[in-house]
Amino acid sequence: MSVRILLVLLFACPAAMAASGSVVETKSLESAILQENRIGLNPTRRIKVYLPPGYAQDKTRYPVIYFLHSINWENESMFAPGTAAQPTFDRAIAEGVMRPFIVVAPDYRTSGVGSLFANSSTAGRFEDHTIQEVIPFVDANYRTLARAGSRGITGDFMGAYGAMRYAFRHPDVFSVVYGMHPVGTGSGVEPLFQRPDWARLQSARTPADLQGDFYGPVFLAMIQTFLPNPQRPPFYCDFMVDVRDGVRSVNVDNVRRVENDFFLENIAAQERDNLRKLRGIKFDWGRYDPTYAHVHSNREFTRDLDELGIEHEAEEFRGLPWDKYWNDNGRVYTEVLPFFNRLLQF
Amino acid sequence: MSVRILLVLLFACPAAMAASGSVVETKSLESAILQENRIGLNPTRRIKVYLPPGYAQDKTRYPVIYFLHSINWENESMFAPGTAAQPTFDRAIAEGVMRPFIVVAPDYRTSGVGSLFANSSTAGRFEDHTIQEVIPFVDANYRTLARAGSRGITGDFMGAYGAMRYAFRHPDVFSVVYGMHPVGTGSGVEPLFQRPDWARLQSARTPADLQGDFYGPVFLAMIQTFLPNPQRPPFYCDFMVDVRDGVRSVNVDNVRRVENDFFLENIAAQERDNLRKLRGIKFDWGRYDPTYAHVHSNREFTRDLDELGIEHEAEEFRGLPWDKYWNDNGRVYTEVLPFFNRLLQF
Amino acid sequence: MSVRILLVLLFACPAAMAASGSVVETKSLESAILQENRIGLNPTRRIKVYLPPGYAQDKTRYPVIYFLHSINWENESMFAPGTAAQPTFDRAIAEGVMRPFIVVAPDYRTSGVGSLFANSSTAGRFEDHTIQEVIPFVDANYRTLARAGSRGITGDFMGAYGAMRYAFRHPDVFSVVYGMHPVGTGSGVEPLFQRPDWARLQSARTPADLQGDFYGPVFLAMIQTFLPNPQRPPFYCDFMVDVRDGVRSVNVDNVRRVENDFFLENIAAQERDNLRKLRGIKFDWGRYDPTYAHVHSNREFTRDLDELGIEHEAEEFRGLPWDKYWNDNGRVYTEVLPFFNRLLQF
Amino acid sequence: MSVRILLVLLFACPAAMAASGSVVETKSLESAILQENRIGLNPTRRIKVYLPPGYAQDKTRYPVIYFLHSINWENESMFAPGTAAQPTFDRAIAEGVMRPFIVVAPDYRTSGVGSLFANSSTAGRFEDHTIQEVIPFVDANYRTLARAGSRGITGDFMGAYGAMRYAFRHPDVFSVVYGMHPVGTGSGVEPLFQRPDWARLQSARTPADLQGDFYGPVFLAMIQTFLPNPQRPPFYCDFMVDVRDGVRSVNVDNVRRVENDFFLENIAAQERDNLRKLRGIKFDWGRYDPTYAHVHSNREFTRDLDELGIEHEAEEFRGLPWDKYWNDNGRVYTEVLPFFNRLLQF
Repeated sequence: MSVRILLVLLFACPAAMAASGSVVETKSLESAILQENRIGLNPTRRIKVYLPPGYAQDKTRYPVIYFLHSINWENESMFAPGTAAQPTFDRAIAEGVMRPFIVVAPDYRTSGVGSLFANSSTAGRFEDHTIQEVIPFVDANYRTLARAGSRGITGDFMGAYGAMRYAFRHPDVFSVVYGMHPVGTGSGVEPLFQRPDWARLQSARTPADLQGDFYGPVFLAMIQTFLPNPQRPPFYCDFMVDVRDGVRSVNVDNVRRVENDFFLENIAAQERDNLRKLRGIKFDWGRYDPTYAHVHSNREFTRDLDELGIEHEAEEFRGLPWDKYWNDNGRVYTEVLPFFNRLLQF
Repeated sequence: MSVRILLVLLFACPAAMAASGSVVETKSLESAILQENRIGLNPTRRIKVYLPPGYAQDKTRYPVIYFLHSINWENESMFAPGTAAQPTFDRAIAEGVMRPFIVVAPDYRTSGVGSLFANSSTAGRFEDHTIQEVIPFVDANYRTLARAGSRGITGDFMGAYGAMRYAFRHPDVFSVVYGMHPVGTGSGVEPLFQRPDWARLQSARTPADLQGDFYGPVFLAMIQTFLPNPQRPPFYCDFMVDVRDGVRSVNVDNVRRVENDFFLENIAAQERDNLRKLRGIKFDWGRYDPTYAHVHSNREFTRDLDELGIEHEAEEFRGLPWDKYWNDNGRVYTEVLPFFNRLLQF
Repeated sequence: MSVRILLVLLFACPAAMAASGSVVETKSLESAILQENRIGLNPTRRIKVYLPPGYAQDKTRYPVIYFLHSINWENESMFAPGTAAQPTFDRAIAEGVMRPFIVVAPDYRTSGVGSLFANSSTAGRFEDHTIQEVIPFVDANYRTLARAGSRGITGDFMGAYGAMRYAFRHPDVFSVVYGMHPVGTGSGVEPLFQRPDWARLQSARTPADLQGDFYGPVFLAMIQTFLPNPQRPPFYCDFMVDVRDGVRSVNVDNVRRVENDFFLENIAAQERDNLRKLRGIKFDWGRYDPTYAHVHSNREFTRDLDELGIEHEAEEFRGLPWDKYWNDNGRVYTEVLPFFNRLLQF
Repeated sequence: MSVRILLVLLFACPAAMAASGSVVETKSLESAILQENRIGLNPTRRIKVYLPPGYAQDKTRYPVIYFLHSINWENESMFAPGTAAQPTFDRAIAEGVMRPFIVVAPDYRTSGVGSLFANSSTAGRFEDHTIQEVIPFVDANYRTLARAGSRGITGDFMGAYGAMRYAFRHPDVFSVVYGMHPVGTGSGVEPLFQRPDWARLQSARTPADLQGDFYGPVFLAMIQTFLPNPQRPPFYCDFMVDVRDGVRSVNVDNVRRVENDFFLENIAAQERDNLRKLRGIKFDWGRYDPTYAHVHSNREFTRDLDELGIEHEAEEFRGLPWDKYWNDNGRVYTEVLPFFNRLLQF
């Protein structure tokens, strides 16, 4: 039966398609790596897996797109009833926007806002966990095309950060990356360290003490990830700004450590040869992000990539960070999946 | 023979396709309207028409996309051998990106840099010419779907300005518009009037006196279009800045007249109800335009449209104004034609 | 006597200066105008007045600088013990930075965040109150130079908005204006209406229901001021965005009414001839304002003024909106007072 | 004697002041260092020196402000009859804006647009020349306060670049720096290498071949300074972009070398401990610079300095790069000289 005839059938019989339709599974993975942490991580991780229609019936191997969820979010909600992910993937496959593929959404929840994806003795070695535990686990349990050329990675907001970080540092593992509204690409208009209320951060004893604070919990995750200090309870980290007797003093060395290890613009410069190995790099962002620093930084970041000689795509669209991706004919459907379809090896 | 079988044939036999392939014709149109002018316009206008493969054989009526060329450019070059327009249209039709359509590229050449598309007693009533002469001429001479729902309009740079101007002011004529890197959408970072060398403009006797001047010839076209003055040779226009005895004085009333009548952000506010009637509005622009004012203005313009409650798409891409549209898998192929295919009535 | 000796004398007698030093008085003004309102305004207004050293002893008449306090602030705190206003004015006079002057800080407190300075049937006619009640009251009770040429006006943040609004609309009353980090000058990067949580605003019954909401209370003041509707309890105003059954719909007419009547860029265009009558216009702002829209709008606003042919000064400085004005050698001392000293008539 | 009478005396004696008024001298300096170059530098340098009123009569030692002229300019024109420098300095001293001081304007002319101030085996070791030859020469020939605390440095446009470069790298020589509209602080919106016409640059045989080219001559100076290559005639430098058979290829290593060694944002990071030693850093720039990259880069640069923990001032003013400094009550008079007066040791 030729592809063409099959397509006709697919279009003709939505009911039949549903019958052998896509499946979303949940797997449990016991992480050895994440046991090392100071923030009470649960080492049992919940992996969500989207299997395309027909997976159970055939013996084909499929490319995999890893989807990294953002902070203040989680992979279960992503596939909750009524959400757009599964229907969008189904429709993309049905209408030929994308050939069949597997999606894996690992678990980056923490006791705080969620992982910032880098390795940290305090906040967990999530980068090692992903590369050394999640990917082998997926390749062992599913009929994947277990090679970089067939592995894509994406995510939204801080998840887009993670996706780009991992692709830039592991081109032997991933070959195509699409960042949906990445953050953490660089400084904004004002210095990064200016945003949170450091006095409140320093006096907090538990994450709950930061409730209602807009930037505090994110900056806590940031310093736990990039300034870990196992000797310094309660958060086991150092600070970018010290507050003593009400006087703020910027710790420039710490600021620079965070910026050097966190910002994608710096990671791109450090991993320049790695970036050249990737088959595709794209990211986009919404112009109306209420935190304008994200917009500003992404504009700077794409120019930085050009100055590094890195071919890529970078689009700024009209919209908020969260309102143009998952709707009908949203950017996941019109941009993200076609990008992977074009560049991944099937 | 069904469409499906035809598509198979198309893919199978590129040679056969060429045999009954697309055609680019040149028609001459004698304009009565353009005879009124002070800048030596040639009233005989050269219209270029792209007819899709099969046009000669069938009896179908087709939607039409009007393509407006920019200043310092012309419609003949657009279809010159080796250029991308015809092959791009052919390929889009062949691969199903777009159903068959006609493209009409009217003639906006002048003795200067070209038309700025508005009506002017000095520089020609090009808007009337387009609406009252070109479109009836096309509908009379070709098997068009002669209704707004089947007429799209586009163009690049100043041509994109013209396309948006005409769509905004004539929703009874056009229903879908895509501006490729429009200019003239609003002021830039600095005041508009600051750019040209007004002393040189005022002392020039012929356009040739402005040779080598970057902004001068464009601003000459601008004031001839928006500040026409039949009593004031040699250019038959007034100026935004007067220079007397070496002293510059800004003529604020003239500045405001130009901005009010020229800038798309003002036209959109004036024609707000018209904009609501359009089926689709999209524009995009390259972040690396050396004249940053264009980038800045487009960002302001899209927000202005949102404040007017006008649904639209507006993307800023990585690139120069001219290097991402016509290449393989460039934006004409991936964005412009699919937009018209989705929204025009076939 | 050399300059050096004279300077020594000047610096040597702070005690003597203090003996006949400056005075800050509080006066009560019963407002008839503010009795018309729907938000529970107290018609008894508290006016703070700074009188320069020597005022009680001499018979001189002095110029007056009106200082408008911002939202979430009040004129009592401005002169509270330990604050910088009085010492800064004293020092400026002592060191010859400014000749002696009176400062009047009217009372713009409301039951909400404070006045937005325009006339409103709901939120009080504060503009009329200022022009028709406060100024005659001050001129009647103090030895002022009771003419426009000797009246300056300033304020910070929303108070700077008020100062510029009043100067632009009443050049017969004020002649010099300095806006310290004005807001409300124009739209930001995103559409103005996007910021607040309209669903929460619509469902609130009292201002207290908006507690903890960042933009809500300010937008409530904005719509009470610019979209008053005496028929619509509980807030007696209309909304820029309507939310019905969870669906948001932008009311474009209301958005445009607010923008037209509120934004200084529009008021400047409306009052263009008035602006020409002013002896001096200056404003400045800190680049690190966490609400980047303020920075963006001020940049647009100064260019707008240039396009209107309005001479002015507009500086963007390194800093937050609130950390560079009142410190030692801060901008009040180095910029604001010298500006008034140079341009006011003494 | 009252202040008023003293002031009258000060203003009453311009003639007397002129009698023992300021002097501008020209000295010749034979440079050994600049003999090493490939671009035909004249090793005889012309040093302009402003000596304050009274210099000839007294025996005082004075602080020195070094003034670095920009590209396409020279130190002779700076003091030409009718220009503002000498009268501005005179007036500042007369009115007490600044205590008496010496100004030295070294000679940075080349056969091209002028020096970019760094050491280069091709374009001359101008940094060594300034530090090792000019300053000892000045201290040997004039009654200077020959110490860092009494040496300031300034300049405009590329001269401001030079001033900041030298101050950042030689805090043992200079203690206060004021950059007037510096360029070369960082990348703009687009990648730096995108601006010039590299094909024209590569095919040029002499600087004259670049006549009429806007960016070409500056980029030639840039690559001769930062990519010197004594083996590669005719310009003895390498290129940021290679053009072979019409195909452009960016040489990323060369781009990064230029950016690393040229941009002040990188020099500031490299010399961070040095910057801390300076007594004062200020720069400002005009928002209406037609090359918006300069505005954008200066905004980025001041934030970079904050992230390095470097105290400084950075103001963006309304104006062009060249129209607000030297006029009456321009920024040289109101900002630059008071800054040096406050921070230099007299």
